[in-house]
Amino acid sequence: MKAVTVRDGELFVSDHPDPEPGSGELLVRVLAAGLNGADMMQRRGLYPAPPGAPQEIPGLEFAGEVVALGPGARRFQEGDRVMAVVGGGGQAELVTVHERAAMPVPGGLGWPEAGGIPETFTTAHDALFTQAGLKPGEHLLVHGAAGGVGTAGIQLARATGARVTATVRNEQLRAGVADFGAEVIDPAGFEENGPFDVILELVGAPNLGANVRSLATLGRIVIIGISAGAKAELNLGALMGTRARIMGSTLRPRPLEEKAAAARALERSVLPLIESGSVRVPVHATYPLDQAAEAYDAFAAGGKLGKIVLIT
Amino acid sequence: MKAVTVRDGELFVSDHPDPEPGSGELLVRVLAAGLNGADMMQRRGLYPAPPGAPQEIPGLEFAGEVVALGPGARRFQEGDRVMAVVGGGGQAELVTVHERAAMPVPGGLGWPEAGGIPETFTTAHDALFTQAGLKPGEHLLVHGAAGGVGTAGIQLARATGARVTATVRNEQLRAGVADFGAEVIDPAGFEENGPFDVILELVGAPNLGANVRSLATLGRIVIIGISAGAKAELNLGALMGTRARIMGSTLRPRPLEEKAAAARALERSVLPLIESGSVRVPVHATYPLDQAAEAYDAFAAGGKLGKIVLIT
Repeated sequence: MKAVTVRDGELFVSDHPDPEPGSGELLVRVLAAGLNGADMMQRRGLYPAPPGAPQEIPGLEFAGEVVALGPGARRFQEGDRVMAVVGGGGQAELVTVHERAAMPVPGGLGWPEAGGIPETFTTAHDALFTQAGLKPGEHLLVHGAAGGVGTAGIQLARATGARVTATVRNEQLRAGVADFGAEVIDPAGFEENGPFDVILELVGAPNLGANVRSLATLGRIVIIGISAGAKAELNLGALMGTRARIMGSTLRPRPLEEKAAAARALERSVLPLIESGSVRVPVHATYPLDQAAEAYDAFAAGGKLGKIVLIT
Repeated sequence: MKAVTVRDGELFVSDHPDPEPGSGELLVRVLAAGLNGADMMQRRGLYPAPPGAPQEIPGLEFAGEVVALGPGARRFQEGDRVMAVVGGGGQAELVTVHERAAMPVPGGLGWPEAGGIPETFTTAHDALFTQAGLKPGEHLLVHGAAGGVGTAGIQLARATGARVTATVRNEQLRAGVADFGAEVIDPAGFEENGPFDVILELVGAPNLGANVRSLATLGRIVIIGISAGAKAELNLGALMGTRARIMGSTLRPRPLEEKAAAARALERSVLPLIESGSVRVPVHATYPLDQAAEAYDAFAAGGKLGKIVLIT
C-alpha cells in the first residue's frame, strides 16, 4: 500500500507492506485522513510515534470502509463506514484499528468531513467536558480558534449552553469563526473580555500569565497546543486565589481502553449533533495522498478555517 | 472580650465588643485556636480577611463550647463542644459561626487538639481527596510535611491505602514525621523517589519544575502553601506529556455553602478516624491568648512538629 512516510525529517509518499488486522481489529481502506498539529511536530522529529503504532507513517485520524475483520471482531461488518483515532498510521491506503476504538461515520456525511472528525472532535470534547467539566452558562475562551479543534470546541460548547469567546490572530478568518457562535476577538488584551470559567489553550506559553489572571473562581485551563512555546512563568499565588486548575492533555499516547472510552463518549454526545447538522465539520482544503507534502506545508502556513484532509 | 488583634502590621491582644450570633449562628466560647500559615501572612499585611469576616481579629480555626444560639439555630445546644473553620476571628474569647460550618468535637479529644483540627484537616482532606482525588495504592508526595497540614495529609493518605513519601528540611523532625507512616526524605533530589501520582505542595515555587518532572501519567499537584515563593517556570509540554494537573486551593475565602460542605466531608470521613485514635493531632506547643505574639514568632521560626495552638 501507499502511505505518507516520515523518515529522518523528510516527508514523502512510499510503499509499505499491507497491515494485517489482529485479534479484535478491523482492516480499513482509508478514504480520508485529517492533518493535525501533532503531524507537524512528527515531521520535525519532535513527536515520535508511541510504542505499538507505525513508527514511520503519521496520521492520528481517518475515515474509511471496513475491508476485513480480524479474529473475534464483531462490532462492524465489511463495507461499514468507520472512523477512529489511532496512535499513527492513518495517512495510508490501509490501516488497522481495534474495533473498540472505531466509530460509525454519521449517515450522509462526506468522506473529507468524516476524516477530519475523530482526533479533532475527540480532543475538543475530551478537553472541554471530560477534563474541564464545562457546564451550561459558563464562559469559555478558545485561544487559536480557527483550526479544526477550535471550531469543534466552539460548536460543542455552544451546543451545551456555554458562552464562547474566541481569539483568532488572522483578521481574515474572524468572521468565519464567528459563524460558529463565538464572539471573536484579537488575542491582544483578551483579558479584558473575562473572567472565563474555562480556557481552551491551542497556542501555548505566551498566553499563560494572562490566562491565569483572567480566570473566574474555580476556573480551568486546558493546554492542548503549544505551537507558540512551552515554557512560561506561572504565579502559584494567583492560582490559589482563584482556586484554579491547569491541565495538560494529549490523545495520542493514551492506551486502547482510554481511546475506546473517548470513542464511546463521542458516539453518545457528539455524533448525534453532527448527524442532525447542528454541528459542522469545516474542511478548509483536501489534497490527494500523493500531495501530502503540499498539504503539510499548507497546514504549517496557517491561515486556514477548519481542517486540511488527505484523500486516499 | 479579649482577642488577638492585627492592626497596621502590629500584633497584640486587646478588648473588642462581644460578637452576637445572627440567624442560624452559634456563639462559641473559644477554648483553643490553632495557628496557620495564613495567620503569618495576615500579620504581615499580605492576606486581608475576606468580606464579612472580622477584619482585625485573625484565626481560621477554633474549638470551644456553645454559649448561645442565634435565631433558628438547631444543630447544637448550649454547652456542646464544637469546632469550625471561619474566615477570621477565631483567636478570641468569643466567636460566632454558622451552625452549618460547625462540627462536633470528637469524644475524649482534648481542647488543644480540637483547636488544631478544623482548618488543618479540612485543608488536607479537601486537597487530597476533593481536589486531587487520591486513591488507594497511589503514591503521594507531601512537601514540607512536618506541620499541621503535612502530618494530617500523611495520616489521611495512609488511612486510605496510599503510599506516602514526605520531604522535611529539618533533620531533627524527620523521625517524628516518619512515625505518621511516611517515608521521609531530604527535599534535595526528591525526584528520584518518584514517580508520584499526587503531590501536596506546602512549600512553593522552588519545587514546581521538579514536581512536574516527577509526576506519573495523570498526576496531580495541589498547591496549598507558597511560603518559599509564588512564581516559577512551568513547562506546558511536560504537563501535556503526563496529562497532569496543577491546582491551587485555599479554604478561607470560600462561601458558607462550600465551608459547610467541607465540614460535612470531614464529619463523615475524618472525625471517625480521630475518634478511634487511628489518626492523631500532633500539638507542638500551646500558648495562652496573652502570649499570642510569642506563639506567632514560634510558628514563623519553624522547626515544629504539628500544631501551635492558642489556649483562651
